[in-house]
Amino acid sequence: MFKAELNDPNILKTSFDAISSIVDEVQIQIDSEGIRLSTIDMSHITFVHLELKKELFDEYECPEPEKINVDTEELMKVLRRARAGDSLIITSDDTNLILTFEGEATRQFKIRLIDIEYETPQPPEIGYENEFEVPFSLLKDAIADMDIFSDNLWQMITFKVDEEKFIVSSTGEFGDAMIEYYHGEKIKEPARSVYSLEKVKEMLRADRFSETAIINLGNDMPLKLTLKMPNDEGELSFLLAPRIET
Amino acid sequence: MFKAELNDPNILKTSFDAISSIVDEVQIQIDSEGIRLSTIDMSHITFVHLELKKELFDEYECPEPEKINVDTEELMKVLRRARAGDSLIITSDDTNLILTFEGEATRQFKIRLIDIEYETPQPPEIGYENEFEVPFSLLKDAIADMDIFSDNLWQMITFKVDEEKFIVSSTGEFGDAMIEYYHGEKIKEPARSVYSLEKVKEMLRADRFSETAIINLGNDMPLKLTLKMPNDEGELSFLLAPRIET
Amino acid sequence: MFKAELNDPNILKTSFDAISSIVDEVQIQIDSEGIRLSTIDMSHITFVHLELKKELFDEYECPEPEKINVDTEELMKVLRRARAGDSLIITSDDTNLILTFEGEATRQFKIRLIDIEYETPQPPEIGYENEFEVPFSLLKDAIADMDIFSDNLWQMITFKVDEEKFIVSSTGEFGDAMIEYYHGEKIKEPARSVYSLEKVKEMLRADRFSETAIINLGNDMPLKLTLKMPNDEGELSFLLAPRIET
Repeated sequence: MFKAELNDPNILKTSFDAISSIVDEVQIQIDSEGIRLSTIDMSHITFVHLELKKELFDEYECPEPEKINVDTEELMKVLRRARAGDSLIITSDDTNLILTFEGEATRQFKIRLIDIEYETPQPPEIGYENEFEVPFSLLKDAIADMDIFSDNLWQMITFKVDEEKFIVSSTGEFGDAMIEYYHGEKIKEPARSVYSLEKVKEMLRADRFSETAIINLGNDMPLKLTLKMPNDEGELSFLLAPRIET
Repeated sequence: MFKAELNDPNILKTSFDAISSIVDEVQIQIDSEGIRLSTIDMSHITFVHLELKKELFDEYECPEPEKINVDTEELMKVLRRARAGDSLIITSDDTNLILTFEGEATRQFKIRLIDIEYETPQPPEIGYENEFEVPFSLLKDAIADMDIFSDNLWQMITFKVDEEKFIVSSTGEFGDAMIEYYHGEKIKEPARSVYSLEKVKEMLRADRFSETAIINLGNDMPLKLTLKMPNDEGELSFLLAPRIET
Repeated sequence: MFKAELNDPNILKTSFDAISSIVDEVQIQIDSEGIRLSTIDMSHITFVHLELKKELFDEYECPEPEKINVDTEELMKVLRRARAGDSLIITSDDTNLILTFEGEATRQFKIRLIDIEYETPQPPEIGYENEFEVPFSLLKDAIADMDIFSDNLWQMITFKVDEEKFIVSSTGEFGDAMIEYYHGEKIKEPARSVYSLEKVKEMLRADRFSETAIINLGNDMPLKLTLKMPNDEGELSFLLAPRIET
């Protein structure tokens, strides 16, 4: 059985905050390289990929590869119980994923494994002309701004980039919202795509993974949003299908 | 078109926190002196007057007077998006009131103008014998105190002043509440009036306008509550009709 | 009539936070020794005893013993209005319990007395083999941990103590939770009992009475939880009937 120890459980917590809002169940793949998952939501709009390399862990053992299926909401409930200063040991037995927090007391949680057929989705290979970085907090603000005139769950949101600025905007019945940010990067060609506001909100729940978000944007193309840990020890990325404007 | 720039949007935000709880729509009048509004709630119980002089603004241009009608809740949604350190530029076009926050990014909100017939209400001219000041926080506390035994939306609250004390009290089925404050002011004659607790609560949502509230109180007369900015740059005042006790 | 003055109303507030979640009405007994109450919930599962000795109070007068019946929720509403730095004077008249907070202003609350027949419940005399202390915050954490896999209001929770550890655990459909704490005390014989999670939660609402909880535990016996103030000036204790496992 594998055993992985993490001094700061927050990376897992923030990742599953987003993942559990996108999918109900997930397959976690564990091997000698680290922990990884790829999943796509039921409507095939958001693809998520999480990779935590063994270097991230304070201890890491995995004699043979394992695949573990869990309910993301149950896992999230446990991760929410992490307290500042706790270290986390992750392991499993035949029927449970086992998370143990070590602090003033030892707190152990067993989450039942799920027996599902799981086919790991493969993300499409996409070549992007543009890549640029924005502060993650700015994206969060932008989404909260767009939300105020949102009329319904189908609210659309436009992402646009030109030589100077990254622009997020949306239009509602009672008002419009727009945020402009000077990105200071080299943009090959201006691009613009429209997405579902609700779907963007789900991705942005991972708000403690990285202070910076790397964005790939094209014209009427999927949005690629990548969050990277320092030293390349972990990465969480999303690929979000565009909405076609009518 | 007018253009007004405000380094601290909080005065607007706290004003519309109260105003949007009292009326759904409002007419804002803008001229070379500043920005002003007068409105009265649908049941004609609360009259509100807001005045922000051009001196309050860091930049102010208004070549010709304008009248702008907006939905107060939509405006409040935008003002809630102000972040510490943002400056705010207010302007308009033919169909929108435009608010732009300048900070790390530029965030622009357009709120649709409303096409309504609007007759500016005139407050009654009232001569009061008594005027005294109380800390605004004390009024907020008093209202929260009165609220605990409140049985329903028609709960009454009594304001009383005598030579020494300002007294707020209310009576419910399960208990009574009273707050007494030594005002340290010169009161010409004791006075006492009864108001709707819910209506007083609405006014007191403007809790960041001023640390001090100026109160005019008479016998079975409207309550006048005035909040003033330092240097006389802005004023928010309310006139609340009394309830007649049965 | 009695009169008791308390410089820090928090002890009363935290006590009634628990008491009001357990019983709707209570009889408070006041005599020359102090203030005391004993009560049991409607299903006869939780017995509560509160004792505040006259030494705890900054002033205390009680010429003759009194018994006062009040609604615990109304009393809790008033205690929630205490502000940091307020002192509290407790007294009564023929129809009200009167609480007066003295601070920047004087705030007085009268809570109607209730006319009920009240028989003071007597707790069973129980001899325990084991007594040990745990940080109160650890108990709170344990309960929140157990709660995450709780399926319903009948969720059971196991308390166990052995020579080394105090263990709280629970089992749900989707997972198990367990917390282990090295108590560092002398335990005469290992013990284990099962309780209702909901009932334990009610007791633990008194989270500012004491940093340490004294626990008496037996096999299939009531849980005794005692919170003591420094200098023996006050004590809040609970006796919780065990659940019989099926």
